[in-house]
Amino acid sequence: MATLCRPAVQVPPHVITMADTLALARSLHSEHPQLPLVLRLIENTGVRTRHLVQPLDLTLRHPGFEARNTVYESEAKARVPQVVSRALATAELAAEDIDLIVYVSCTGFMMPSLTAWLINTQGFRSTTRQLPIAQLGCAGGGAAINRAHDFCTAHPDANALIVACEFCSLCYQPTDSGIGSLLSNGLFGDGVAAAVVRGSGGTGISLERNGSYLIPGTEAWISYDVRSTGFHFVLDKRVPSTMGPLAPALGDLATLHGWDVTGLDFYIVHAGGPRILLDLGEFLRVPQYAFRFSRATLTEYGNTASVVVLDALRRLFEEGGPGDGARGLLAGFGPGITAEMALGRWRSPLHSPDSPPEGVLSP
Amino acid sequence: MATLCRPAVQVPPHVITMADTLALARSLHSEHPQLPLVLRLIENTGVRTRHLVQPLDLTLRHPGFEARNTVYESEAKARVPQVVSRALATAELAAEDIDLIVYVSCTGFMMPSLTAWLINTQGFRSTTRQLPIAQLGCAGGGAAINRAHDFCTAHPDANALIVACEFCSLCYQPTDSGIGSLLSNGLFGDGVAAAVVRGSGGTGISLERNGSYLIPGTEAWISYDVRSTGFHFVLDKRVPSTMGPLAPALGDLATLHGWDVTGLDFYIVHAGGPRILLDLGEFLRVPQYAFRFSRATLTEYGNTASVVVLDALRRLFEEGGPGDGARGLLAGFGPGITAEMALGRWRSPLHSPDSPPEGVLSP
Repeated sequence: MATLCRPAVQVPPHVITMADTLALARSLHSEHPQLPLVLRLIENTGVRTRHLVQPLDLTLRHPGFEARNTVYESEAKARVPQVVSRALATAELAAEDIDLIVYVSCTGFMMPSLTAWLINTQGFRSTTRQLPIAQLGCAGGGAAINRAHDFCTAHPDANALIVACEFCSLCYQPTDSGIGSLLSNGLFGDGVAAAVVRGSGGTGISLERNGSYLIPGTEAWISYDVRSTGFHFVLDKRVPSTMGPLAPALGDLATLHGWDVTGLDFYIVHAGGPRILLDLGEFLRVPQYAFRFSRATLTEYGNTASVVVLDALRRLFEEGGPGDGARGLLAGFGPGITAEMALGRWRSPLHSPDSPPEGVLSP
Repeated sequence: MATLCRPAVQVPPHVITMADTLALARSLHSEHPQLPLVLRLIENTGVRTRHLVQPLDLTLRHPGFEARNTVYESEAKARVPQVVSRALATAELAAEDIDLIVYVSCTGFMMPSLTAWLINTQGFRSTTRQLPIAQLGCAGGGAAINRAHDFCTAHPDANALIVACEFCSLCYQPTDSGIGSLLSNGLFGDGVAAAVVRGSGGTGISLERNGSYLIPGTEAWISYDVRSTGFHFVLDKRVPSTMGPLAPALGDLATLHGWDVTGLDFYIVHAGGPRILLDLGEFLRVPQYAFRFSRATLTEYGNTASVVVLDALRRLFEEGGPGDGARGLLAGFGPGITAEMALGRWRSPLHSPDSPPEGVLSP
C-alpha cells in the first residue's frame, strides 16, 4: 500500500507583496487601456506575498532564454537538495532506499533533467529510475503523486521520491501585455518541494485510487508559446470557469471508489486562483474551510505551479493531520486542461498495521 | 501480464543519403581543420539513408526556435495519428481501450504536449492518463516501455499506448561546428513510432522486469545547451565508449532475473552509433548478428532517438518473431548517461493462455 509522506517545501528569499505587485503594474503599464481591470484581477487573487529566486530588479529583466536556464539550473541545484533531504528524513528513508525519482518542473528546461545530477551528487543508487515531466504544468504535482503511486503498486517493496521545482519568475516576459499575462505576473510564485511515496510503511496519505481527466477542446486555454525568448505563458480568460466541467470528474472518481465527493474529510487541490476554490466549493458542495490549505498556499506563496498541491498537503500535516482513516481527495489542475486526481486515506503511525518500528530506516 | 505489442513506425519522405551527407559536410565545412576526421566519423556510422520532415534546403536553414517548434507541431499532428491507429489495430484495441498515453519526444517542445491533442482528436477517452517525457532523449523509448509496463502491472486490466516522435533534423544548428556536432549532423534522422502495451492478452514481448542505470559522473556527456536558437545537442567524444560501464548493468539485470545476459534469444538495443553495437557484442559476448535489427534501423534511418528501440523491435516482429517463450533484452541508452532496460519473453498468439479469441477488440 503506497503512502504519500509529509512533503518538505522551501520558498526562496526575495519577497514581493501585493502592494509591490500593484505598484509595479501601475508603473510598468500606466498606459495600458485596461489597467483598472488588471489591478482588480490582481487584487482579487488574494495573493499577499510571493517568494522569488532573484531580487525584483533582476526578475524584471530578460537576459535571454539561455541565461534564464542557467539561473534555473543553479537555483535548482542550490535549493532542491534541502527539500529532498528533509522529505527523506521525514519518511524515515535514506537516499539509497529510493527506486524512482519523479521530477516535475515546467519553468526551466534541462536535458538530462536534474534527476541525473541528484543521483550523482545526493547519494541515490545508480539504478534509481528517472521520470522527468516538464509538460504537465500545474497538474504536474498531482501527476507525480499518481505515477509514484502506480510505481509503488507495481513494485510494492519500492519507494519513490517526488520533486517539484518551479521558478515561475524565470518565465516573466516583459513584452507580453495581454490581460492574461498581466494577471499571471501578479499570480505566480517560486518554490521547491519534495515528498516520498513509500511502498510500505510511512505516515501520511495511503493512496487508494488515481485518475485523470482532460476537458475536451481546451488545449489552447493554458499553454506555452515556445519562442527564442523562452516559454510565454498563455492563459485564456475561460480558465477560471473550468471547475464546472472538472468538478463532475472529481465526483466520478470518488463514486468509482464508493465515496461521496461531498463528504470527504480533507481536500488538497491546486489553488490556481481564487475562483477555482470558490467554484469548487460550490460545485462539490463543500465549505470553503475545506480548502484552507490550498487558500493558505495561494495567499502566502502565490500559484507555485506543480508545487501547490505539495505545499497544501504540507499544511495538512502541520495542522496535525485529519485522524486515522480519514478519507480525502488530492487534485492538480493544469494544461490540457487536465486534472490529475487521487483518493486516499490518512494513515497515522500508531494505527498502521504494516508500518515499521520506530527508528527503522528502510522497509 | 503486460505485453508489448508490435510497433508501427513511419519515416518522413525526404531522403538524405550518406553520399549527400558527405558532400554537404565537404561544402559547408571546407575550411574546417578536422574535416577529414569528420568525414571518416560520418562514414563509420554506416548510416546509408535518413528520412527528414523537410527538404534539404529547408532543413539547413534555421528560421528560429519558434518557427521550428511550429513545424514540429504540424509534422507531429500530420504523422503521429497514422502510427497510433496502426499500433492500435495490431494490438486489436480501439482508442477508447487505452488508459495511459506515454509520449516521448526530445526534439520539439509543446505544453500541453501532443497527448492532449491526441485525446481530443483521435477517439481516446477524456480519462486517459497522459505521461509526456521530453528529457530522456534516446533513452526515452526504453523509458516509455518501462513506465507502460509499471502502469499495466499496477492496473492489470489497463492498456498503455507508447508514442515516440522525433524530428532530430529540427535541432540542426548551422553555427555548431565542433566534431561532436558535425558527427551528429550525419547521424540523426527523423521518425515516429507507436506501440501498445496490453495489460492482458496480445502478441509480442511479455514484459517481466525493468530497470535503469545511470553511469556516474556523465551528466555532461550527452546534453542540450538550451539557447534562444533552441536545443543544441552536445555529444562528448567519450560517449561511444560507454558500453564498458553499461554492459555490466545489463548483465546485472539479467542475473537478478535468473537469466544469463549472454545466452538470450533476442536483443533490441538503442543503435546510438556503430561502436555501441560492436562494443556491446564484445562485452556481452553476443554475436553481431544478434543486433541485426538495431543495425538495420541505424543503416536505413540513422539514429532516430527514442524511436530506435521501437523500430528495431518492429523488425523483430517482421522477421516473424523468435518463437514462443524466447527470452530477450530491450534497452534504450541516452542522456544521463542512462540505460532504460527491460527483460521479456516472446508470447505468440496461439500459446498465450490469456489471449482473447480472434476478433475480440478489448481484453
